[in-house]
Amino acid sequence: MSGRVLVVDDVATNRLLLRAKLSSAYYDVVVAESGTSALDIARREQPDMIILDVMMPDMDGFAVCAALKEDEETAHIPVIMVTALDTPEERVRGLEAGADDFLSKPFDDLALFARVRNLMRMKMMFDELRLRDLTSRELGLTDFVTEHEMEVETGGAVLLAPPSDASGASWAEALRDRLGLSPILTHSEREALNLARLELPDLFVVHRSLIEGGDGLRLVSALRARPETRQAAILLVVEPGDVEAAATGLDLGASDYIEAPFDVNELVARVRSQLRRKRYSDRLRSNVRNGLMMAVIDPLTGIYNRRYAEQHMNRVMERARETGGAFAVLMIDLDKFKAINDRWGHDAGDAVLREFSRRLQENIRGVDLVARFGGEEFFVAMPDIDHEQAAAAAERIRGAVEGRPFEVTGTKDGLRVTVSIGVAIGTAEDGDPETIIRRADLALFRSKNAGRNRVSFCAEAA
Amino acid sequence: MSGRVLVVDDVATNRLLLRAKLSSAYYDVVVAESGTSALDIARREQPDMIILDVMMPDMDGFAVCAALKEDEETAHIPVIMVTALDTPEERVRGLEAGADDFLSKPFDDLALFARVRNLMRMKMMFDELRLRDLTSRELGLTDFVTEHEMEVETGGAVLLAPPSDASGASWAEALRDRLGLSPILTHSEREALNLARLELPDLFVVHRSLIEGGDGLRLVSALRARPETRQAAILLVVEPGDVEAAATGLDLGASDYIEAPFDVNELVARVRSQLRRKRYSDRLRSNVRNGLMMAVIDPLTGIYNRRYAEQHMNRVMERARETGGAFAVLMIDLDKFKAINDRWGHDAGDAVLREFSRRLQENIRGVDLVARFGGEEFFVAMPDIDHEQAAAAAERIRGAVEGRPFEVTGTKDGLRVTVSIGVAIGTAEDGDPETIIRRADLALFRSKNAGRNRVSFCAEAA
Repeated sequence: MSGRVLVVDDVATNRLLLRAKLSSAYYDVVVAESGTSALDIARREQPDMIILDVMMPDMDGFAVCAALKEDEETAHIPVIMVTALDTPEERVRGLEAGADDFLSKPFDDLALFARVRNLMRMKMMFDELRLRDLTSRELGLTDFVTEHEMEVETGGAVLLAPPSDASGASWAEALRDRLGLSPILTHSEREALNLARLELPDLFVVHRSLIEGGDGLRLVSALRARPETRQAAILLVVEPGDVEAAATGLDLGASDYIEAPFDVNELVARVRSQLRRKRYSDRLRSNVRNGLMMAVIDPLTGIYNRRYAEQHMNRVMERARETGGAFAVLMIDLDKFKAINDRWGHDAGDAVLREFSRRLQENIRGVDLVARFGGEEFFVAMPDIDHEQAAAAAERIRGAVEGRPFEVTGTKDGLRVTVSIGVAIGTAEDGDPETIIRRADLALFRSKNAGRNRVSFCAEAA
Repeated sequence: MSGRVLVVDDVATNRLLLRAKLSSAYYDVVVAESGTSALDIARREQPDMIILDVMMPDMDGFAVCAALKEDEETAHIPVIMVTALDTPEERVRGLEAGADDFLSKPFDDLALFARVRNLMRMKMMFDELRLRDLTSRELGLTDFVTEHEMEVETGGAVLLAPPSDASGASWAEALRDRLGLSPILTHSEREALNLARLELPDLFVVHRSLIEGGDGLRLVSALRARPETRQAAILLVVEPGDVEAAATGLDLGASDYIEAPFDVNELVARVRSQLRRKRYSDRLRSNVRNGLMMAVIDPLTGIYNRRYAEQHMNRVMERARETGGAFAVLMIDLDKFKAINDRWGHDAGDAVLREFSRRLQENIRGVDLVARFGGEEFFVAMPDIDHEQAAAAAERIRGAVEGRPFEVTGTKDGLRVTVSIGVAIGTAEDGDPETIIRRADLALFRSKNAGRNRVSFCAEAA
């Protein structure tokens, strides 16, 4: 996959060299000569990736990287740092500033391109997720947070597939002591895959060669091929200088790699940044899910709204047609609710609605669905139920409201509340949800007319 | 990126050969010996891709492909067909059955793996989109449709970058006559990129060598690097046997390729299937957006709901703090609305609410925001406005309701409706939206107490 790469270096020949390399592989290249201009260009051109020299006169690479990660407009762009020294200390400092990887000059093409491909793919995935999240934020459904701001000190499930028991023990110790994690140790591909299915790790640390002789690359591939582990982070551990295994691993979908033996600080920094990324992508996914949930949830009571209830009725009726069973629909209205609002204020009215929805939920079965249709009107759908059972349920709800005053701030002994209920029994023969709901509404109207605080039925045929 | 591939072939040696090839590249391989077992395994194992032999005794590849595409559980899995003859007729038949590409035996590894990588990447993107869409469907916010069911005969913008004017004219003619499209013809990379920015094509047909000597692969890469064309479909046209260009193109992000000169039926079939896929991904994206929109829209009136209005108020107040300007909040309540519902029924009440929200929208400015807070209560936020202007707007709204009866089915001369309005003016000093809304509510209460059908103000300080 192609994309746009921003090359940042104060030395012209370095820029030219990298530009030529990347252009020959068909990447679209833009360049910046200093850290400050890099920040401008990154905002304006929105590259898919930034290759950033560490040693620059005005702002060094660490400062540029940290500034990129603090800016909402550029925080999501992957950064590869180009180091001269390439010490563990430098790498840890870069990871802490938000860098994704490090290259040292002269460049190894295999390593460079494997990393660029890998980060391009990751960027594309995140762009899709961010796009959904952006909509959700525009609509005020979710808050904004950048990956770099995500907290990581809240644990996470980690699975280790080390080359020996001794390595496994030392990795586990480092992650336990420094990050408070409790990693699971595995000995073979099969064991790792089986445990992964149960434990759903956020991160796998996988050595190229497993204890029982298995192939770490094959494990990476299998983890990516399974839906339950596809989204997890994978840190591949390779022998020193084994660029080929690293490149293959990245192409297979490893999130990052590290050469062993490593400085424990570097392991900790890489694990931390992978866990952060995993948490960030989980959050983007759940943001959209939560945003969508809000479309079907009544904000005051937290129960479903009319939109969802009507949709749900289609499923209830489909089931009735399959099984030939009956179902019931209850329409419930709080009696003289307007008087509560007028006398005690809207906050008191809201408290009554919330308390009622709690009592309602306590008096139905797990398979039933309650919804607020709007105002003081509530709805219950009860599948697989007959007339007698529905009557008992409705009576139980009515009694649960009348039986005990509603505690409301500002009132002395709470408020006496009653409800009127209309019940319609539906069967396989009924045509559409609207008709049944209208019948329940009609029954509710009868309850109101007959003096409220009672349950009425509507005949089975419309 | 790794993934799981299902190989379907009735001949054991073919299965073994392909399994060995794919396994050595670390793909996870499952096999099926017949079309019927392939359908079972595809449902159960959910592979990321299916490589399907055409010539099989029980069900041939075309029938298997069509069945896969009709099944909701498998419709999204890419299919590569393995043909012995490899004629344009066979390819067209395969494309119409829903296949993504064709390979002929013996396999060219370069072509095979480039295509597999390309389809894996596409599958991953679609999986992300489908996941969001699935949530949205579970909640009943959007309907389900498979890619194969998408209609394609509704046009689409197509840009051609042919190798010569003559080819361009003949491609354009075929797409015009057969698919009713009006393709744009371009001569160079730059022209294609400039026009793309204006026309936002759904599909690009790009030859390896452009009329003015440009490089088609570089154009593919540039299209993928730009946000505005990143999601478009790209059909690459290569010289016969130029597997290398095809493979590079697929790796750069081309959606499909075809060898020129081609049978015009094959061009039409490939264009059709790429347009369908583009439309499908657009739809998945907009489904989620629409689903999210539903969280902030009142279903009865189509205007924003309280959740969105409160969020919007934060922005209005932030702007007031920046500019030092004032803003107004109107709370509007339909007078004696309960009586309308009781007398004329809920349908009439709903019609009145809808008509009121129309009149409300006609009497505000473009920068104002209207929302339904629930029941018969509406809200307007008016930025950059003073006391006098707000009073005039509120009076205009009140008059627009009183001035003309509401036409409602079942009533003879329509219904006379009035509204009470409360106005609060907010400034940079105001703390939070709730306080302002409460002040407008208080003013509304005064309008009600003073006999309804009037506008009241609340003093600027709380």
